[in-house]
Amino acid sequence: MIHLESDYNNGAHEAVLRHLVETNEERTQSYGDDCFSEQARAMIREACEAPDAQIWFLAGGTQTNATIIDCVLQPYEGVLCAETAHINVHEAGAVEFTGHKVIALPAHEGKLAVGELRAWLTAYYADDTAEHMVRPGMVYITFPTELGTLYTADELMALHEVCKQYGLLLYVDGARLAYGLAASPDVTLPLLAQLSDVFYIGGTKCGALCGEAVVFPNGDAPIHMLSRIKRHGALLAKSRVVGVQFEALFTKVNGEPLYMAIGRQAVTLAMQLRSLFVERMGYQPFIDSPTNQQFYIIPNDNLERLRKSIGFEVWCPVDECHTACRFVTSWATTEEEIENLGLKAF
Amino acid sequence: MIHLESDYNNGAHEAVLRHLVETNEERTQSYGDDCFSEQARAMIREACEAPDAQIWFLAGGTQTNATIIDCVLQPYEGVLCAETAHINVHEAGAVEFTGHKVIALPAHEGKLAVGELRAWLTAYYADDTAEHMVRPGMVYITFPTELGTLYTADELMALHEVCKQYGLLLYVDGARLAYGLAASPDVTLPLLAQLSDVFYIGGTKCGALCGEAVVFPNGDAPIHMLSRIKRHGALLAKSRVVGVQFEALFTKVNGEPLYMAIGRQAVTLAMQLRSLFVERMGYQPFIDSPTNQQFYIIPNDNLERLRKSIGFEVWCPVDECHTACRFVTSWATTEEEIENLGLKAF
Amino acid sequence: MIHLESDYNNGAHEAVLRHLVETNEERTQSYGDDCFSEQARAMIREACEAPDAQIWFLAGGTQTNATIIDCVLQPYEGVLCAETAHINVHEAGAVEFTGHKVIALPAHEGKLAVGELRAWLTAYYADDTAEHMVRPGMVYITFPTELGTLYTADELMALHEVCKQYGLLLYVDGARLAYGLAASPDVTLPLLAQLSDVFYIGGTKCGALCGEAVVFPNGDAPIHMLSRIKRHGALLAKSRVVGVQFEALFTKVNGEPLYMAIGRQAVTLAMQLRSLFVERMGYQPFIDSPTNQQFYIIPNDNLERLRKSIGFEVWCPVDECHTACRFVTSWATTEEEIENLGLKAF
Amino acid sequence: MIHLESDYNNGAHEAVLRHLVETNEERTQSYGDDCFSEQARAMIREACEAPDAQIWFLAGGTQTNATIIDCVLQPYEGVLCAETAHINVHEAGAVEFTGHKVIALPAHEGKLAVGELRAWLTAYYADDTAEHMVRPGMVYITFPTELGTLYTADELMALHEVCKQYGLLLYVDGARLAYGLAASPDVTLPLLAQLSDVFYIGGTKCGALCGEAVVFPNGDAPIHMLSRIKRHGALLAKSRVVGVQFEALFTKVNGEPLYMAIGRQAVTLAMQLRSLFVERMGYQPFIDSPTNQQFYIIPNDNLERLRKSIGFEVWCPVDECHTACRFVTSWATTEEEIENLGLKAF
Repeated sequence: MIHLESDYNNGAHEAVLRHLVETNEERTQSYGDDCFSEQARAMIREACEAPDAQIWFLAGGTQTNATIIDCVLQPYEGVLCAETAHINVHEAGAVEFTGHKVIALPAHEGKLAVGELRAWLTAYYADDTAEHMVRPGMVYITFPTELGTLYTADELMALHEVCKQYGLLLYVDGARLAYGLAASPDVTLPLLAQLSDVFYIGGTKCGALCGEAVVFPNGDAPIHMLSRIKRHGALLAKSRVVGVQFEALFTKVNGEPLYMAIGRQAVTLAMQLRSLFVERMGYQPFIDSPTNQQFYIIPNDNLERLRKSIGFEVWCPVDECHTACRFVTSWATTEEEIENLGLKAF
Repeated sequence: MIHLESDYNNGAHEAVLRHLVETNEERTQSYGDDCFSEQARAMIREACEAPDAQIWFLAGGTQTNATIIDCVLQPYEGVLCAETAHINVHEAGAVEFTGHKVIALPAHEGKLAVGELRAWLTAYYADDTAEHMVRPGMVYITFPTELGTLYTADELMALHEVCKQYGLLLYVDGARLAYGLAASPDVTLPLLAQLSDVFYIGGTKCGALCGEAVVFPNGDAPIHMLSRIKRHGALLAKSRVVGVQFEALFTKVNGEPLYMAIGRQAVTLAMQLRSLFVERMGYQPFIDSPTNQQFYIIPNDNLERLRKSIGFEVWCPVDECHTACRFVTSWATTEEEIENLGLKAF
Repeated sequence: MIHLESDYNNGAHEAVLRHLVETNEERTQSYGDDCFSEQARAMIREACEAPDAQIWFLAGGTQTNATIIDCVLQPYEGVLCAETAHINVHEAGAVEFTGHKVIALPAHEGKLAVGELRAWLTAYYADDTAEHMVRPGMVYITFPTELGTLYTADELMALHEVCKQYGLLLYVDGARLAYGLAASPDVTLPLLAQLSDVFYIGGTKCGALCGEAVVFPNGDAPIHMLSRIKRHGALLAKSRVVGVQFEALFTKVNGEPLYMAIGRQAVTLAMQLRSLFVERMGYQPFIDSPTNQQFYIIPNDNLERLRKSIGFEVWCPVDECHTACRFVTSWATTEEEIENLGLKAF
Repeated sequence: MIHLESDYNNGAHEAVLRHLVETNEERTQSYGDDCFSEQARAMIREACEAPDAQIWFLAGGTQTNATIIDCVLQPYEGVLCAETAHINVHEAGAVEFTGHKVIALPAHEGKLAVGELRAWLTAYYADDTAEHMVRPGMVYITFPTELGTLYTADELMALHEVCKQYGLLLYVDGARLAYGLAASPDVTLPLLAQLSDVFYIGGTKCGALCGEAVVFPNGDAPIHMLSRIKRHGALLAKSRVVGVQFEALFTKVNGEPLYMAIGRQAVTLAMQLRSLFVERMGYQPFIDSPTNQQFYIIPNDNLERLRKSIGFEVWCPVDECHTACRFVTSWATTEEEIENLGLKAF
């Protein structure tokens, strides 16, 4: 049995857990001032080639999105995103809870089309009644998207340009950033730091027990961030818990942060899974995803049998006889598990 | 050097950490449905003698207070508390952020006086303009309080009575509950479960890396709690992280949950510290606290010397020559550390 | 010059103003308890054939929408509406300010399609991740819509059915209700009261200086409405100001409330305008609106000349040579003004 | 029978009503751009000797307080006020609804003591945990206070100094400003405009049907005020309704705005009432108020008889045999009414 239901059905990468154990006896400051968090910040700044970056550690993804979006937007501003965006669909209204409208544009395999974004903005600013509408303050994208797809470097640059032109912030939700960086041919952490105004490096789904690292690459976070974060209930007293984990994730192994290796392994296994599904089983991809989330169209009469060997998630019906299903690898998936899957006559 | 600055300057109790390690390989459900969380819930229900209790695991204290208070109050209701209450002073307005007024009454060594509460409620309901005022919906207390003090079982019963009479919920913030239960002569977990409508068992300050367990002892939490919690950004995807820890904390050791032993040890050491400070050093208590937070009046010219052996927190000036300081033991404090302190001619 | 820019560019219907003058000397209760408000409520109950109706008077439309939607929704619920709905476009995020998501469905000439609504609800309730999404709590429609169109009685009944089936409230924004009722062949005030859970009768655009009447036809408004409304800053101290005006608007003239006559006159004049534009000038309707808001496609080289005789609003470009424009009649438009317009060779 | 229950139990001053009638036929812009609002703004700027003042017209007092406080505060800031302040007691939590804490300091006959304010601020900024607390962003005072008392020019200057020193905004709630200015020996509208950062000139209680004028005397309101106000549901579509009324209130009569005369007459009559009560009836003042709200200690066995001639409000019990009662004059109170009262052997 291989568990591909999600990338948060596991514990932590053993290096992360080991670092928690080996630092356990030390006493530290709290509320973000601990030495582990400081060290992790230095490592992230280096990996991002962003020496001025300001970094905060929060506990989870929805919390991070709602807190950061509310912290950087003006009260009367909303956030633009693809209609399939996590903040628009699967955060139970956490952004609206902070008083901001989520303005959804059409999604193309999970992605915003730059041209449509530009057209929306042109129309908004040409509208005589714009003052009566929610002002756009930010563009939110996920990298990779909820459907596993990736923006190219060119697309990110175009989004960056549009945002600059219209005075919007570009925010990248990197809940699965490790997998996106591993799969992208041209998007790197330094490029992301260059093109976005704020982004977060996901820990929970990429090897940590919990925790996300919010990065303001240009060091221009709003003042009083500690108070703002605490007001959202998102300030960890024992901040070291996330700091220690990110220290482990950004410790270099063979010349690169562990975080990168984690992403690469999961993507490699995802590609092996893809071969197995497409070439061997003859399943069609539902979405052409290069990352750790894989979506295939499964004949309904195969589902039962498949469930005996694989834990997965039903995504949506395709037609009367087929169902789209999601299969997610992670740092916790092993080569052996994928190999065994291949050996089975499933 | 002994670190008594706080009870969140450490890692986790070794049994908690060990359980994280030994469960790391297992794959589980997420969002609270994992088997560890389920097991931890069963253990907590048993410890509370509350078989119908509903339990949720959240990441931190301020988050828990703001989320739960907002979830159970009607929109137009406020929460009554002592003016020194954590939600009134040190949560950066997290409760007000959710739209509710914090109504502060006088504090007596950190505690609400039942008589004053009753008088306030009588006056409120006699006021012709009550409809124009924030309606009282809840009484919030901390056990132990921010000053280390404890309500007696009689006081809790009286608060419970007043709440019942006026239709208010009684909510107990148990961030340091282990220490309170260990120090109280008559308040037990089952009694707390009997007298309160909702309370939380603090993990972060009592042996866990992070996490708090919210308990509705009567199983009458509002519907759709998962959606409500997620809307507050407080739902952990990898819920097992807290579940595993509480499973460890409520595993029985010598016939009682580890959680109780953790509290007792810290309180025992706090009492040894007290002897040292009062009898040996001649310091006066600033507050007569029976729990792990100890407050002493230190002559200003002793402060420098004290800092060489002890990490502690300045609380507030007392007079021109004296300062009240806080010394906090925890599960992480060792007998050896306290003994060594006694050996020093500080 | 005839002013057809909007139906809020005027003062008040002379009967409304006269009633303000003739009641000016009387002293009354405040906060909704004045005798004028009481009398107006009785008149509205009668006109709605809803003897149990609860009625509140608020000052303006956006305030009413945001206040009422927030008062009746549970915190975790959102409101479904057409993407062109006022709350989705032109209220500057007032609903999201109260913490609720506005869930926009496709609009068909300003209207929700019942089938699409039902399909959305079916999909929502079939979705395994529904708990992570904003729950639907209400369907919001405008009658007439922002484009002047009307739901038929059959369509309203179908919406009512869907709402009942899925436990949603049906809320009707009647900012221009007088004009909608006048133009509809089959929707009456009693029918509206029967089919909706809450609706408001617009005053500001239908003859009053200011004020809207919120009606809960079944008398099942949430408790503590006065406190809820005040919390939204929407409670008028001098409540009589709106009460007196609605008393005038619902005073019967020739056997029917003045409100109905106001609507009918404006619609009659709108139809005369339509004849003029379509038959005489040869303009095409942009939208086929039977109410007081009329939309025509004007050749761009006619715009300048038109502006000399008529005040109107540019709606949106149609093609390179044509522009859609809005022309709005109201109770304040006179037959003479429309006749004069016809006499001009514009 | 004389009605002294409140100053919002009446209609409008006849000059206000007359101006509504005489402007009724004109067509105007909406949303604040109408010519009446523009003219009223010019008059208010002149009366305030504040040529750069920005002015918005809102419908009511609680709405104005909640909207303006939220618009000018940073999200993490709270508002300091006397514990008897309207926003702290009688606005049903409207400020907290917008997410801001109301921080109450002791009240002295309804007033903040500058020394206590300064001491609070000194303590706040000396506190190591200040970042975990709500930051002070504004001082809110009422002029006159809820108890009818007045700050002297010196007190206002001292408050202004403290606010400047600590970077706080000074906001003056002038719901009853006409009566305050009339009674104050040294506070004028220009002085108020000089010393406060934002204040509002109350219309509802001072001669208008409804409406308050918010003044930023230095023209430094936050950007996008129209969007902000609309987001709070506080933007009037038919803005002229308040504009026309303020035009009437600030039209000069005998060389001064009508608003001043309205205040003076009510205060004159309040002083006659005072003579009657104190000298003739022998009642003790409960509060020594120089304005239109008068508070007297009435023997309980007089209450019944008094109620036959006077409408008034019970304020609070004083002792077993006495009750404090409030008697409010307004622009609508007549000399004749007060004289008649004197003639009665009540």
